[in-house]
Amino acid sequence: MEHVLTIEDVRNTISNWKKEGYSIGYVPTMGFLHDGHASLIDQARKNNDKVIVSIFVNPIQFGENEDLSTYPRDINNDKKLCESHGVDLIFTPSSEEMYQDKKAFVDIIDLSNTLCGLRRPIHFKGVCTVVAKFFNIIQPTNAYFGKKDAQQLAIIRKMVFDLNFPVNIIGVPIVREHDGLAKSSRNTYLSSDERKAATILYKSIQKGKSSIEPGCSADSIINTMTEIIQSEPLAKIDYISVVDANTMQPVQKVISPVLVAMAVYIGTTRLIDNFSYDPN
Amino acid sequence: MEHVLTIEDVRNTISNWKKEGYSIGYVPTMGFLHDGHASLIDQARKNNDKVIVSIFVNPIQFGENEDLSTYPRDINNDKKLCESHGVDLIFTPSSEEMYQDKKAFVDIIDLSNTLCGLRRPIHFKGVCTVVAKFFNIIQPTNAYFGKKDAQQLAIIRKMVFDLNFPVNIIGVPIVREHDGLAKSSRNTYLSSDERKAATILYKSIQKGKSSIEPGCSADSIINTMTEIIQSEPLAKIDYISVVDANTMQPVQKVISPVLVAMAVYIGTTRLIDNFSYDPN
Repeated sequence: MEHVLTIEDVRNTISNWKKEGYSIGYVPTMGFLHDGHASLIDQARKNNDKVIVSIFVNPIQFGENEDLSTYPRDINNDKKLCESHGVDLIFTPSSEEMYQDKKAFVDIIDLSNTLCGLRRPIHFKGVCTVVAKFFNIIQPTNAYFGKKDAQQLAIIRKMVFDLNFPVNIIGVPIVREHDGLAKSSRNTYLSSDERKAATILYKSIQKGKSSIEPGCSADSIINTMTEIIQSEPLAKIDYISVVDANTMQPVQKVISPVLVAMAVYIGTTRLIDNFSYDPN
Repeated sequence: MEHVLTIEDVRNTISNWKKEGYSIGYVPTMGFLHDGHASLIDQARKNNDKVIVSIFVNPIQFGENEDLSTYPRDINNDKKLCESHGVDLIFTPSSEEMYQDKKAFVDIIDLSNTLCGLRRPIHFKGVCTVVAKFFNIIQPTNAYFGKKDAQQLAIIRKMVFDLNFPVNIIGVPIVREHDGLAKSSRNTYLSSDERKAATILYKSIQKGKSSIEPGCSADSIINTMTEIIQSEPLAKIDYISVVDANTMQPVQKVISPVLVAMAVYIGTTRLIDNFSYDPN
């Protein structure tokens, strides 16, 4: 497995691969890799000649009061995981390598003003910009994103469609702990009590899944799921929303494909989870 | 010469070229081609295996009161010019083909808030977005832009640098009429009297060029050039500015490379011209 730190070095390797006609599967990450990332890598490994993983905690997608400085890092473990899952190249640029200047950017309207975008106003601009940069540097055939970050996936799909990036976007199902908690690098923030309390998200998701039906009202689902979360004293709801699967705008009735998404604070740790539902 | 109207058809041709390892030179235009465009095409022809010209009057770079609907068009003449200059493919998409939706966009700060950006607040966002789209569709090796649109060239260079587009940007010198007027599709708007009056731009540029020297004040150049323009009753200055060649921000003294740029109304037609100067 090759490990490179500069854009120039990635480009040299990519250029040789492109000459050979190899397909390239790309998995963008912020590191502190877990089984969720591994499932993205496995999917990429299965369907491409070469697999690249980038590890970059992107400063411009964190707000002022967010956890940029404390975001967990463990590059040695990340390298081991990548190596054991057959990654060909990991790319771990510094912030200085990625952002020599910050004048040009990529952004998206409408899809970014709901759900996580409400509380994190600059977040998706930072995500779009860094993903556009990585796409231009790596020029992947296929890029893999987790469905846990469902709004991010919808936004990346829209960015690729609207701006004609020559890359296929593949969404990979959520990977969960044995008790249902969605795998996340941020789970490491949880104390032992909070870790137990965090299972309430999945319980709420399961209740939502079993309650939703074609034509039902969004409010009925939201209320049902809210009740479950409120039964846990350590949990505080940021949002529970039912939005159109493509536009990310709230719907009143479930008559077309929807995303049911939530963000919940467990103590000071903000966790997200979601499920998709197609009434047709 | 191949002529295609859809993104899919361009991609099919490009894909075959890429497999052969051909370099691709790309000239983006809004059509109504003249000798200025021809010089871009000739440069592309000289340095690439294949040459693509796009012709697209990009609606999103025109403001509400600008000349989108009256912008001159002559596709038959454009095809003849391209054919005679050895173009391999022209791509003339419709607005519907380019903009199925308009959620994602590319924009740039600072470089776009001076000169033409002052009067045309959405202009460069539209330019960045459409150029990013064409780069993603065509994936050119080299792309050619005229130095007449100096701020546009600086912005495209910055966009490519900041967002890591894998394309080389080449600036091509201004082509002028025998009396010095910079070639422009908008020259066709000029009445016979206005056409004569329009030579005042180049006279002012020439005076600026002969007056500028290392360490001189921007104001002294601007005043000298303003006087010349004001001697022509049909001319009305939009701006004459001296800006840093890279940041496009106004300078007070000429101590590093600068762009001296102007926009002048001749009647209702807005014309631009400029020159670059390096004091070192």
